[in-house]
Amino acid sequence: MHTDKRFDSELRNLREKLLLMGGLVEEAIARAMRSLVERDTPLAVQVRKDDHRINLLEKEIDELCVRLLALYQPAASDLRFITLAFKVVTDLERIGDLAVNIALRAEQLNAAPPLRPWKAIPHMAELGRKMLEQALDAFVAGDSKQARAIMEGDEEVDELYRGVFRELAAMIAAEPEKSQQVMSVLFVAKHLERMADHVTNVAEMVIFYVEGRDVRHGASEELPR
Amino acid sequence: MHTDKRFDSELRNLREKLLLMGGLVEEAIARAMRSLVERDTPLAVQVRKDDHRINLLEKEIDELCVRLLALYQPAASDLRFITLAFKVVTDLERIGDLAVNIALRAEQLNAAPPLRPWKAIPHMAELGRKMLEQALDAFVAGDSKQARAIMEGDEEVDELYRGVFRELAAMIAAEPEKSQQVMSVLFVAKHLERMADHVTNVAEMVIFYVEGRDVRHGASEELPR
Repeated sequence: MHTDKRFDSELRNLREKLLLMGGLVEEAIARAMRSLVERDTPLAVQVRKDDHRINLLEKEIDELCVRLLALYQPAASDLRFITLAFKVVTDLERIGDLAVNIALRAEQLNAAPPLRPWKAIPHMAELGRKMLEQALDAFVAGDSKQARAIMEGDEEVDELYRGVFRELAAMIAAEPEKSQQVMSVLFVAKHLERMADHVTNVAEMVIFYVEGRDVRHGASEELPR
Repeated sequence: MHTDKRFDSELRNLREKLLLMGGLVEEAIARAMRSLVERDTPLAVQVRKDDHRINLLEKEIDELCVRLLALYQPAASDLRFITLAFKVVTDLERIGDLAVNIALRAEQLNAAPPLRPWKAIPHMAELGRKMLEQALDAFVAGDSKQARAIMEGDEEVDELYRGVFRELAAMIAAEPEKSQQVMSVLFVAKHLERMADHVTNVAEMVIFYVEGRDVRHGASEELPR
């Protein structure tokens, strides 16, 4: 095979691995939350068990990035793409870890009598999962406008988080006998808030890849293409 | 003691724990880098061993935050401060983990013949450590202007990172027999870049705390004080 063709095929491989990993992470979020809401402990255990697939993909993607860099010395947009993959993979792996953390809290909470449902928490999770889905779509479509919209979702999650934080604090005060359980719920909210931060990182990197400039913190200087 | 006074003393305690943790994390970064640059493996081992102190402080701070919320139901700026602590502690713990990752890479690299020095990498680390120091100073002084300046440091780190990335890729291509070692250096750079991201999160939270509004992603709506 011609070198260029081989490189293109390796890039496609990298892209597919990244999307596969993104899909697994999305699923991990959805299942961790279902294990919590539906009090399904076996599902929570499954989320923990399946995390090694996400971790394995991280290693594979890291290695593939380094191999592509070394073998082909790519420039411009290909180099940006590999930078994106090398970075985004860290966020995806962390989101997977956060899903595991939520599953662990679900196991604790499911072993105790049910608390009243916290609508804001599944809402935060659904926003986070949707943001990730959109970020991956924006990546596939090379659509930086869509990626920008995701960053607004993060503000919504932050606002929900602050509301949950206040509400749970009031509940600990009112029903101290439930404080262990309520604390577990508070940690779930914390993990979800952090999850949205990681998705925002992914969205920023997609914009960097598509537009060839760094949007973080208001920077807007053009990079050489 | 009067409730208000007890609350004030608990808040001071929280503040001190946070600064102590910040100081330990700063030290972990500096020592991890020294273990790498000076090829000091026992120091790298020490960084790994000392990480449990940082992890322990994370737990203590988390618990203290929840206790303060439950006992005193704080509002306005006190509530913002506790939100800050509850969130920042996650970033600090992650930065500590990244210092451990760097120490592990130092152990690997120190066991092999020395590569030529990478000036940009200690430079990235020093920028990151200084950003953290400034973020903690800005927190103590309640100075959001200083916190804003930190976010520019992150762009500098990102630019250094992209330069290192390209350079290391070229080196793997030119000297494939060293590729394992060069990959370790590349991972050190990746950890440092991520470290600066976490410090930027801390700076953003300091601004949120001082100004009572969320600066992330350009949002500027006032929150009730």
